[in-house]
Amino acid sequence: MKKAVVLVSGGLDSATTLALARQQGYACYAVSFDYGQRHVSELNAANQVVEKIGVEDHKTIRIDLDGIGGSALTDTRIAVPDKPSKGIPITYVPARNTIFLSLALGWSEVLGARDLFIGVNAVDYSGYPDCRPEFISAFEKMANLATKAGVESANSNDGYFRLHTPLIDLTKAQIIQEGIRLGVDYSLTVSCYAADDKGAACGVCDSCRLRRAGFESAGIVDPTVYQ
Amino acid sequence: MKKAVVLVSGGLDSATTLALARQQGYACYAVSFDYGQRHVSELNAANQVVEKIGVEDHKTIRIDLDGIGGSALTDTRIAVPDKPSKGIPITYVPARNTIFLSLALGWSEVLGARDLFIGVNAVDYSGYPDCRPEFISAFEKMANLATKAGVESANSNDGYFRLHTPLIDLTKAQIIQEGIRLGVDYSLTVSCYAADDKGAACGVCDSCRLRRAGFESAGIVDPTVYQ
Repeated sequence: MKKAVVLVSGGLDSATTLALARQQGYACYAVSFDYGQRHVSELNAANQVVEKIGVEDHKTIRIDLDGIGGSALTDTRIAVPDKPSKGIPITYVPARNTIFLSLALGWSEVLGARDLFIGVNAVDYSGYPDCRPEFISAFEKMANLATKAGVESANSNDGYFRLHTPLIDLTKAQIIQEGIRLGVDYSLTVSCYAADDKGAACGVCDSCRLRRAGFESAGIVDPTVYQ
Repeated sequence: MKKAVVLVSGGLDSATTLALARQQGYACYAVSFDYGQRHVSELNAANQVVEKIGVEDHKTIRIDLDGIGGSALTDTRIAVPDKPSKGIPITYVPARNTIFLSLALGWSEVLGARDLFIGVNAVDYSGYPDCRPEFISAFEKMANLATKAGVESANSNDGYFRLHTPLIDLTKAQIIQEGIRLGVDYSLTVSCYAADDKGAACGVCDSCRLRRAGFESAGIVDPTVYQ
């Protein structure tokens, strides 16, 4: 069985991505990040998601991003907006997916896994630059130059490490329909940027809005518990 | 004064890089990484180096790489070789510079610094893939696609973030001569992969061999304390 490292945040998209990787026959190694995010209930959700879907191993890596600051998600002095904002919102965490993918890459190399799955989406999303296909493609190229595994397979044209982004072109409604088909229990997932300790969602942040609209558009009952 | 983020490990190369960045007139923000490395005396050395050279701020970020393993530098069950090895040695830490640069990138964006300095060298080095110019160039490209600052300056042709690698083409002897010219106190630095708690060097690991040969070749008295 081929191994894959899958980034699991506890949200809707990454749960769907994990289910898709499993369906494609990968032995899945889930990785989550404790980066000082406001919404720690996300990490509880990640634990529940990986337990329900099933993985070979699950690692939660602590990173000191709250020491760096600069985002409403890691600095409690910056409020999470309750209205859509123009441009890239203040919930953007500087270099977040770059940092997450770098750590996932290191673990992949140790495991001998060449496939990494990340549930980024560039349709119904908050406009974060590190969710776009051009970023993913540049990261993949860099990863194959950065690593022993990448360099030692340099004769093969397609590189060693492959980043899989199965959701990148889907709408939120399509993601939900795909997940339902695969049996994902979305009641376990937490998407809200300002969820309470039990994972109840605010209903008004960008992430809540996208999620709620996705269930509506998909014609599926929203299992989210709101505050 | 322009701000720069400088990666400082406590070794000879990064101390020289910091001195060069200062000389070029940057307000320097030093970042070190506590990644479960064997040689914690490296971090003590980093503290002394930044204090001596002078920086605006110094952040030491803890990363759980020992939980990932796969290297003689982070897994105490793997011995540090005392002889040169063929190919990329077991002291290679998977994705290390990718992870370090990603975190430095995040901090740079928060600080509003567009210049990052890293003391990689592809001449007298251990053959690590993430010290080569092609890796640095790919990382820079990726960084400018990953970040808000990079994307918002997309109209400028040269990108927002710039990676500076002033040592990349120098021999170890040239690096030492440059550092001596700038007044770097190499007695504060620790390069050894298996230094003891006081920073005394083994003298036989790859890093010790390169350093010792560099002082010899430069005709400069080696201030290293050996075990």
